[in-house]
Amino acid sequence: MGIARVEAVFHVRSESQSVEARARAIAIEQSVEMPLEAIDDPAILREIAGTVEGIRDLGGGLFEVRIGLAVATIGADAGQLLNMVFGNTSLQEDVLLHDVILPPELEVAFAGPRYGLAGLRRFVGARGRAMTCSALKPQGLAPERLAELAGRFARGRIDFIKDDHGIADQPYAPFAVRVPAIAAAVRRASEVSGHPTRYLPSLSGDLDRMRRQLRIAREEGLVAVLIAPVIAGVATLQVLAHEWPGIAFFAHPTFGGAARISPALLIGKLFRLFGADAVIFPNFGGRFGYSPEMCRALAGNATALNPRLAASVPVPAGGMTRERVPEILDFYGPDTMLLLGGSLLATGAGLTEATLAFTEAVARHEQGPG
Amino acid sequence: MGIARVEAVFHVRSESQSVEARARAIAIEQSVEMPLEAIDDPAILREIAGTVEGIRDLGGGLFEVRIGLAVATIGADAGQLLNMVFGNTSLQEDVLLHDVILPPELEVAFAGPRYGLAGLRRFVGARGRAMTCSALKPQGLAPERLAELAGRFARGRIDFIKDDHGIADQPYAPFAVRVPAIAAAVRRASEVSGHPTRYLPSLSGDLDRMRRQLRIAREEGLVAVLIAPVIAGVATLQVLAHEWPGIAFFAHPTFGGAARISPALLIGKLFRLFGADAVIFPNFGGRFGYSPEMCRALAGNATALNPRLAASVPVPAGGMTRERVPEILDFYGPDTMLLLGGSLLATGAGLTEATLAFTEAVARHEQGPG
Repeated sequence: MGIARVEAVFHVRSESQSVEARARAIAIEQSVEMPLEAIDDPAILREIAGTVEGIRDLGGGLFEVRIGLAVATIGADAGQLLNMVFGNTSLQEDVLLHDVILPPELEVAFAGPRYGLAGLRRFVGARGRAMTCSALKPQGLAPERLAELAGRFARGRIDFIKDDHGIADQPYAPFAVRVPAIAAAVRRASEVSGHPTRYLPSLSGDLDRMRRQLRIAREEGLVAVLIAPVIAGVATLQVLAHEWPGIAFFAHPTFGGAARISPALLIGKLFRLFGADAVIFPNFGGRFGYSPEMCRALAGNATALNPRLAASVPVPAGGMTRERVPEILDFYGPDTMLLLGGSLLATGAGLTEATLAFTEAVARHEQGPG
Repeated sequence: MGIARVEAVFHVRSESQSVEARARAIAIEQSVEMPLEAIDDPAILREIAGTVEGIRDLGGGLFEVRIGLAVATIGADAGQLLNMVFGNTSLQEDVLLHDVILPPELEVAFAGPRYGLAGLRRFVGARGRAMTCSALKPQGLAPERLAELAGRFARGRIDFIKDDHGIADQPYAPFAVRVPAIAAAVRRASEVSGHPTRYLPSLSGDLDRMRRQLRIAREEGLVAVLIAPVIAGVATLQVLAHEWPGIAFFAHPTFGGAARISPALLIGKLFRLFGADAVIFPNFGGRFGYSPEMCRALAGNATALNPRLAASVPVPAGGMTRERVPEILDFYGPDTMLLLGGSLLATGAGLTEATLAFTEAVARHEQGPG
């Protein structure tokens, strides 16, 4: 019986004659971080030191390098997982972290989303269809202006309305003033529309400040919030998802794409593992540079069947327009949530009507060949 | 009188005929995140929307783009600063964040290091000389083995001993067992050596777990700890530096180099701003790819004279050997701390003697032309 290991899959740019040495160096860097010959304890060499599990030539000077890392070095701490799979190696220019394969016991320990795809659908009564989302912006608006926008989105029967991720706790719209105002506006509009639109405020600051914000959200009857795991710290998402069972967590990718780490891995797989019920990411063809293949891999990671982890909802976003709704739904299928922000807001006085057209287009979409 | 702004300096890969539009798009992305023509509030256009402050051709298809971002959108929250200067733009492949220039009031609000260069020197009685540091590893060692190593380092009159950044709270060396054992060994050895060697344990997990770890550190009389700001969340460093006035914070770069953000900015300037008393970074010529120019810029940012911010200690590290001590000291000057880990540990039975040779080489070094 071997040691339980996490497998980290790197893409390494290297000469073919030096790639084996490079792989061994990565295995050391991400585990014992010192020369093996200076380690006199055989148990550490056997059970703790990283192992080269495989090297494959991908062509063009690129190699896939698979490194085994002892589960014992990680435990069930999200931050320590990032630290062990890509901590120091993130500082080396020739390496990209492509994937991480976890043993089942670690998936069980991390637990993943509490609500996920099925839970978010229940919140908004969406049966077998894609969900819809929009964003409150621009930042700088006062709470009553944001509340008014939210009410108009809700009258358009949108499923979720999120704070723009730039909206934090600024003096022009403090969390404690903004969130009750917006929540009330959404409640009133939902009573009129008959659709249970859900508002999710954006958390910011340190863990304690986020807890204060969550208490306000709970007092307002909200069921979901937005968090930016790479800025907040992934352990912050992990602990909040654990200690707030009544709240679903949407993960925003801000600052996360900065990494030389595959977005499909970080956003689709790891944010899910750490407890995100929905993961927002830049759709292809918008104002960000992700390819259709990367988006498909990311959504695939978020929703892949796993008996130990609920699916996260993939939320493509970023400069999309209503005209693209059929194409996007054909691409992602119904297990998704579409986020349109600026293109709805740009309709000005026609916001509710534009939102209705968006939500109806999603609701009546017949799945294409996909 | 203008609006108080943070200036974010990007390096953008672009065609020259499209760079102005690209710059405007970045200014929008990092502020209001919606088309300006859809904003009907003149105060938001004037006071909140990002501004293009300058564009300069750097040659070779690269442009320096300077964007002004309203201080009002940031406040004094470290996470929100990262969010506003590079949140969504980090997801775009053609852009690197090169620098951030803060108005004085924001530097005052963030406060920076409490101890910094002068404070850490006082802790170890180092007058006008470079300081020394080593690391306890490999991980997998039991507390008594780590304590024994620490005692031998301390008998070699090293200034600081840190946990390897991979050492967290694993079952083979739990924080609550390891830290008292190591602290006791260092105290005993310091009494023998007469040198006040300081041990710094590595914090891990979420904010609450770090606070529990800090309480243990304080009970053991420790004066410094190690934290990884990009993994912990920069707001976690910020709040801990504020609420633990008796503790100095060393920042580890793990996972931080993953970003398309200049290390000189992230590690040298921003970690300092957020309260790191010392910043560890990969030295040139070791096993990481930073250039001498990048290291000089990073150390320069950490120590640049600033009436509002104490200097952070630049701590070059990563695969260095004793033979390089004179060269490294000539390069960085005395306002630095040298970190040698594996190359000392590899001496095995000669660890104390090797450490003594290292600390003496640093102490007697006559500054070269630098």
